[in-house]
Formats: sequence, C-alpha cells, structure tokens
Amino acid sequence: MHVAVLLFDEFETLDVFGPVEVFGKCEDVRFHYCSIHGGAVKSSQDLTIQTQAASQISACDVLLIPGGRGTRGLVSDSAFIAGLKNLCPRSRYILTVCTGSALLGMTGLLDGKIATSNKRSFDWVVSTNDKVSWQKSARWTSEGYIYTSSGVSAGIDMTLGFVADLFGRSLAEEIADHIEYVWNSDKDEDPFAV
Amino acid sequence: MHVAVLLFDEFETLDVFGPVEVFGKCEDVRFHYCSIHGGAVKSSQDLTIQTQAASQISACDVLLIPGGRGTRGLVSDSAFIAGLKNLCPRSRYILTVCTGSALLGMTGLLDGKIATSNKRSFDWVVSTNDKVSWQKSARWTSEGYIYTSSGVSAGIDMTLGFVADLFGRSLAEEIADHIEYVWNSDKDEDPFAV
Repeated sequence: MHVAVLLFDEFETLDVFGPVEVFGKCEDVRFHYCSIHGGAVKSSQDLTIQTQAASQISACDVLLIPGGRGTRGLVSDSAFIAGLKNLCPRSRYILTVCTGSALLGMTGLLDGKIATSNKRSFDWVVSTNDKVSWQKSARWTSEGYIYTSSGVSAGIDMTLGFVADLFGRSLAEEIADHIEYVWNSDKDEDPFAV
Repeated sequence: MHVAVLLFDEFETLDVFGPVEVFGKCEDVRFHYCSIHGGAVKSSQDLTIQTQAASQISACDVLLIPGGRGTRGLVSDSAFIAGLKNLCPRSRYILTVCTGSALLGMTGLLDGKIATSNKRSFDWVVSTNDKVSWQKSARWTSEGYIYTSSGVSAGIDMTLGFVADLFGRSLAEEIADHIEYVWNSDKDEDPFAV
C-alpha cells in the first residue's frame, strides 16, 4: 500500500502522524511525503520535513491531506489548488483531516458529497464551499473513495475506520490495541460537536 | 518553554508527535529535535528528520524520549547511553513514552523510582533494569521531575497530565478540546493493562 502524504507549511503535526502511525501498522506500507513544489516543509509545531514534488507521485493507494493554519491561505492559492487537482486522480482513496477538507473542497471533488472538518474552524470551512453537504456532527465521514475527519485526533479514528472498511474490523482493533489507543469506532459519535 | 525531543533511528512516530502536538498548543514553546550525534534520523514510519547534536542543547525545560524498535539495540549502545546521561541533567523535566523508559532506565535515573512502559514490550523493559519499580498497570507515572507513559497514545494522556500539573487542569482540558481528543486524565486508569 502506497500512502502519499501531502504537506505544506503550517500543517498540523498530529493530523499527519496519527494516521501515519495507524497505516504504519498495516503490512507492506510505503509512505511518500510530498508537497506541491517539493523541498522542505515546516509544520505548525516547528517540524521540518523534506518532501518530494507531488508531480513525482505516479500512483498511490491513499492520499492523506492534513489541515492546519496553512490551509487558510492555500484555499485561495490557485497554483496549490491546481497541483492538488492534478494529484487527486492518481490516488485510489483520499483521506482528509481537520481543515484538509477545505483544500479538497476547492478541487470540486467534494461537490454534492458529505464531508466534515474540525469544530473550531467549521464556519470558515463551510464558507469556502456551498456545494458540499457539510456534517457538523461527525467523527468522520466516508462516501465512495473519499473520507474526511473532524479535528486532529479524529484522524486516528477515521484511519482505523478506513482500515476496518478495507481490511476488516479485526485488523483495526488489533492496531488500536497495539498503539494503546481507545478507538472511537462509530463515525457518527462526535463528542466535540456541541 | 524549550522542549528537546531526542530522536534515533526507528523511533515510533506517534510517541513523538502526540506529545509535540500537545506542547505546541501551550504558549511560547520552542522545539529542539536532536539526536546523540546529530544529522538525519528515520522513524519506523519512514519519516526522515534533520536533528541537531544533543551536545548543542544547552538547557531545556522538557526532554522527551520516545520509544520504538530502535530502543532494542540502544539499551546496550554505550555511546548512546553515555550521551543520554550527559543530556538528562540539562532538562528540568524528563518525559518518556513507551519503551523510552528502558533507555532512561539505563542512565540510572529511574533507580528506586516508579515507571511504566507499553504492555507488549513490558517483560523486555523490566528485564533491562531490576532497580526500577515497574508499574504494569498505569497509563502514566510521575515521580518528581520524571514522567513515564505506557504505549504510543498514552504519551498524549501523559503530556496533557504534565501540562495540568504545571499550568493547571483547565489548560490541559482546553488543549484536549482543541485537538478533539478524549483525554484519559486518570494516570492509574489503564485500559490496556490486562
């Protein structure tokens, strides 16, 4: 399984590394950390990662799009959105965490679909795209090949849910146990919605 | 608050970035990613991070020591343990996640103290040091300036507990809410102990 992780300046660290931890416990996984232009990318938590250019990703099974402060500017960055539009069709599945759904929304791929995002930025995310059926109360959503999660830690629950959908619930439970994580396995159970 | 994060090849990704996410929500935090010799370090999840040498860390408030497969060899790597022994006294607090406690144990700083580790590697961790009062059932432990947590995700609970001890429970709860994380705030409540 090839997992491409799209990074950008001021991405939220745990949006990425919660899901990466879960995927890392599946068999035969390869991670491809990329950014639209390639090079060094810095998270909101001072972490610098070297990335390859998104154009170098030929085909992958999963594209993970995190959120974070950086998304605020990127929704109106036409070069970034064009790069993302180009990248998305090369992945079988697309997973977003937090405000990563606002970025995916700008490609048009969420039009007419259900999606969610984190609760503190929810109004802003909704304002970026009125063609999406935004779900305020959802730990995560899935529709076809697209999964979107609520804020930060919800990405761990969603990724375990994705693993359960693809490979069976027992593997997801085994991974949650391995990383000593109390999995909220009900995507409709959202303790942060109110 | 200066947070030094000690990395080594095959560290466990979420052991680091759960706590980093929590610390990143405190005010005026600076992260210093280091390794004993400096240079590029690769996690068990294919993440490569550039680090500074531990000798460049002058003084810090928190030293975070993750676990992971890499710890298996490092407990008997005398140069690594010597470097860690040298680094520890420069930090006001030391936090370990998962098998990071086995590394800290080799410095002698856990002798006579309570400590824990993840459950799957517990017997191995215990075998590395019989002078430590290892707690099999504990989400995390704290004694004086040293905090140790159980496996992977437990590091998030411990770090929130550490923040509560230092800055008050309301900040810890605010951070948990911000990152949409259901905090297990009772360090003695360990769902993975049996």
